[in-house]
Parts: sequence; structure tokens; C-alpha cells
Amino acid sequence: MIRHGSVFREIAQNCWDPVTRAEECQRDGVHVQVLSTIPILFSYWASAEHAHDLSRYLNDHIAGICRAQPANFLGLGTLPMQSPKLAIKELERCMDQLGLAGVQIGSHIERTGEPDWNLDDPHVVEVLQACASLNAAVFVHPWDMMGSSQMPRHWLPWLVGMPAETARAMCSILLGGILEKIPALRMAFAHGGGSFPGTIGRIEHGYNCRPDLVATNATKSPRETLGSFWVDSLVHDQDALKTIMRLFGENKVALGTDYPFPLGEQHPGSLIDSIEEFSPTLREKLRGLNSLDFLGPSATKQIRQHHQVSP
Amino acid sequence: MIRHGSVFREIAQNCWDPVTRAEECQRDGVHVQVLSTIPILFSYWASAEHAHDLSRYLNDHIAGICRAQPANFLGLGTLPMQSPKLAIKELERCMDQLGLAGVQIGSHIERTGEPDWNLDDPHVVEVLQACASLNAAVFVHPWDMMGSSQMPRHWLPWLVGMPAETARAMCSILLGGILEKIPALRMAFAHGGGSFPGTIGRIEHGYNCRPDLVATNATKSPRETLGSFWVDSLVHDQDALKTIMRLFGENKVALGTDYPFPLGEQHPGSLIDSIEEFSPTLREKLRGLNSLDFLGPSATKQIRQHHQVSP
Repeated sequence: MIRHGSVFREIAQNCWDPVTRAEECQRDGVHVQVLSTIPILFSYWASAEHAHDLSRYLNDHIAGICRAQPANFLGLGTLPMQSPKLAIKELERCMDQLGLAGVQIGSHIERTGEPDWNLDDPHVVEVLQACASLNAAVFVHPWDMMGSSQMPRHWLPWLVGMPAETARAMCSILLGGILEKIPALRMAFAHGGGSFPGTIGRIEHGYNCRPDLVATNATKSPRETLGSFWVDSLVHDQDALKTIMRLFGENKVALGTDYPFPLGEQHPGSLIDSIEEFSPTLREKLRGLNSLDFLGPSATKQIRQHHQVSP
Repeated sequence: MIRHGSVFREIAQNCWDPVTRAEECQRDGVHVQVLSTIPILFSYWASAEHAHDLSRYLNDHIAGICRAQPANFLGLGTLPMQSPKLAIKELERCMDQLGLAGVQIGSHIERTGEPDWNLDDPHVVEVLQACASLNAAVFVHPWDMMGSSQMPRHWLPWLVGMPAETARAMCSILLGGILEKIPALRMAFAHGGGSFPGTIGRIEHGYNCRPDLVATNATKSPRETLGSFWVDSLVHDQDALKTIMRLFGENKVALGTDYPFPLGEQHPGSLIDSIEEFSPTLREKLRGLNSLDFLGPSATKQIRQHHQVSP
């Protein structure tokens, strides 16, 4: 992949080829994959019309793969979030025509030459409201990482910037009171919630000690909202996984892989498997059932048609 | 305090008046405070000469308070880090003439119109080398937070940006191999290491999966460096405190308060006190002895002259 004339990353055909992906699923014992667009293609920086065109192309591709192998693939679309109007138009197509389970959005919406929209910006909230109305799951993945230009070494945009982006997204949603305004909205955040779980003490303390700054839009504190959204399990550390289970609840942590990228879990589920005290019931939740709850009744029905899934 | 013509923060006399501070110490059962400059005064954005002048003024003030009440106050100086030459000159004055225990520096050195220096930049390393030679402790506090201009609501520069800054500083030191190059250097990081402890799984995985990007300067992985530096205890959460104890070791976590600011711990030591399973010996380490180890033999000697301290 070339970006602005320089190599961004070498990728292999497991990025786009469903046959290769199915083979690797079989190798890894994965029954179902949820497909989504790689964040670098969000293209929120582009003109809304161009991003709309690109979204349609990408969503058609994902939907085609899902239609061809409904036992193995579910899909999340991407939206031209820089235009709520076009985003909702494409969202309706994703849900009504393409049969996708929802969408994936960035941790904020970058806008060329203008301030970013955070996820509690009214423009974004308009789209989130439509997602709730259309029963679309919303997965938030970090991108356009803060501080990137000032941290050129050691892959720090990925190791420090991405977790901060996810915390920024979660704090915007929670402190913006968005889940209070749209209680039907199903949201999940990547990488176990990034830096949010490890700094929740600080965030909660901020809410309590400076309500004039922090508690202006939400009537619930961050801790009081725990359990009303999902995070994935991609934390690469047993203690961190136990922490997010304790914080978010056993029903709100869902297997995350970042497949097929190196920062992902090379053998999906191995961190969950490595924790001996997790019961078989809990493992089933973490490995799939919680994802189905997040993805919604239609996705759940599709998967249950093809696989034996415990209740 | 006015900054660029607008109100930055209202502060009270406990910010500058040693009598008020001593009274509040007595109220809170604090025997010794380590004084340092509020990060907004680092002034790395200014000309080096102006920052040097300001550093001298601030350091003289802190040193004067410490000299007047050696039983109650130890001090850390501030340096004009934008000029390694002037920084080292002022560092020598701090250590040789002012009797300070070391210095406090930012999580990176911002430079007007130029890329930031991260803490593994050769200019910064030159100063850190001098700190080790002069036996100066180095306390790293986040400032000039990444993403601030794009997160105007909910105090997110403090709640998300600061923890990310501390992780950026720690990753720069560890992945830059700085503690391998300067093993005598005593460094401590604020706020329990910010977002570093909660994302160490991701950081370590990055080191292992993309050594070409992450392991270019360090021969030890981040996990292998744990125990070679200090963090403070200011995490506002029992589980987070237990996590940093487990990660960094019982000898490397030192009471942090952010006194007298609202994001600090209003009753210093209350989080430590709240964890019943901590033994009396461990509590003494957390509440003071680990700080003395970090601050060095001269500070330790001064305090032992005035207070009965367990060995």
C-alpha cells in the first residue's frame, strides 16, 4: 500500500481474498469472521462525495463476500462520516440492501482544515441516532492518531496514540451523554478500550472533582455507564483482560483479533484460552456469544442457522 | 493565572506560600513535601535564554523554601531543556549550589516551529547523562498534551492527553534504550505511569511482533526494564494501584499527590491506606521510603536528620 507517495505497509492476500481468509479461519479454529474496512480507508479527509463513492465500493465488496459465504462472514460497513447526510444514506443502504450488521467508524472524524469532530459532536450524533433506529451495531476503531507527527520513532502512534484515541472516543461518548440520549445504541470499542480501563480512576476523579468541566453533558459518571457498551479482548495481557472483564462485565467483552495484522492476536482466542479460571460458559461468551449480542438479532439469526451455538 | 490573554486557572496561596503549605501538611499528616514547578511554567516554547532566566528564578524560590524548612521540604528544579548547554549549566547550579534533589522535566520538549524532542532525543539524553553524573533524580510530568487542540471538551487533555504523554515519555526512554545507556539514572514518572501500565501488553507485543520498528534502540523489551525506574501512586483506583505494584515492584511506587490541584489526591495517602492487605512495611515504602530511594542519598540524609524513619 502506497500513501502520499511512500510505502505505508506491505499487505498479503489475506487482506482481501475470502478464500485465503477462509483457509486461515480453518487453520485457527475460527468459525465466523466479522469483516470491516481497514481504518486507513475511512478517508474522512477526502471530499464527502469521493468518500461516499469509496464507501459504496468497499461496502459492496464486503457484502458480496458475506452473501457468498453466510456461514463464515458477517460484515460492518464504512461511512462517509464527514457528511452526516451521505453517511446516513449509505448506512440505510448497508442495513436495508446489503445485509450488513452495522458499521465501523473512527475514534474521531478528521476534517481537512477544520477541527475534528469528536464522537459527541452533533454531526456524529445524528448518524449514531440513525444507527440506533436502523439497529446497526457501531464498532469504533482508532485512527488518525493524536501526536503522530511528534512521535516518529518506535511505532508510538500505534502503541501510544491508538490507545489514547480509543479513550478519547469512549470519553466523548460517555461524557457527552450519548448513551443516555440514545439508549438503544449498541457500541463497541477496539483493543479492550485502549487506555480507558487503566486510567478510569483518573477519568472518574476528573468527573467528580471538576464537574464544571467534565460533567456538563452526562448525568451518569463514567463508572456508572460501564456495562452499557462492549469492548474487544485484544489486550495481549492476562491481567489487562481480567481488568476489562471486571470493569465492563462478562457479557460485554468480545473476542478481538485485528486479523490479519501483526499487532493482532496471531492465534485468535489464545489469550482467553490461557486463563485457566475462566469457565466453559464464560469462554463461549468471550469467543462469540457476546459478539452476537453486539451485532444484533439479524446477525445472530444468520449465524445460528449455520452453527450450533449454545443459548 | 492568565495565559495568552485568557484565564488558565484560578490558584490559591497553597501554590506558592510555604506557611500555608506547612499548615496543610500538618492537617493532612504529611511530614515532607517535594516541591516542584507547575508544568505550565516549563516554558520550553520560549527562547532558551528567557527560559534559563525563569528557571533560575523558580529554582531560587524553591531552594529558599527548602533551606528555610529543611525538615519539611525537598526540591526539584526546572531546566531550560530547549538548550542542553543552558540546561546542564542550571542543573549544575541546582545540584552544587541550591541543594536540590534533582529536576522535573516534561514528557517531551516542545520546540517552537520545530519537531518536539522526545526523551530519547540526543539533546535530551545529553542532559539526562549529566543528571546521572550529578546524582540528580529526574521526575517526568506530562505537559503540552498531544491532541489538546482537537479535544476541547470534557477536560480531555487532562484525562486522556496526560496519561498518553506519560506513556510517550516512558516508551521513549525504554524503547530508546536510555536506561541501558545510563544505568545510574534515577527516573520517576507521574500518575502511575499514565496509560503505560494498562497498555503494556500492546507495547510489549509491538516490541516482539515488529522489532524492525520498535526494537531498534533497546536490547531489553519494555517488560524486561520494569523495576529500573519509579512511578508515583496517583491512580485514584485500588485495582490500578495493585497493577502498578505488580508491574513495577513494591520498591518502585512512591506516593504522588499532585497537591494542591483538584486532579490530585485530596487526602494524600488515602488510596494506599484504603488497601487493607498492604502490610505496615509496604505502607512505609509507598508513603515515603521509595521516594527517598528515588531522590537519592543526600535527600535521604537530610530527612533522616529530622524524622524518625524506619530503615
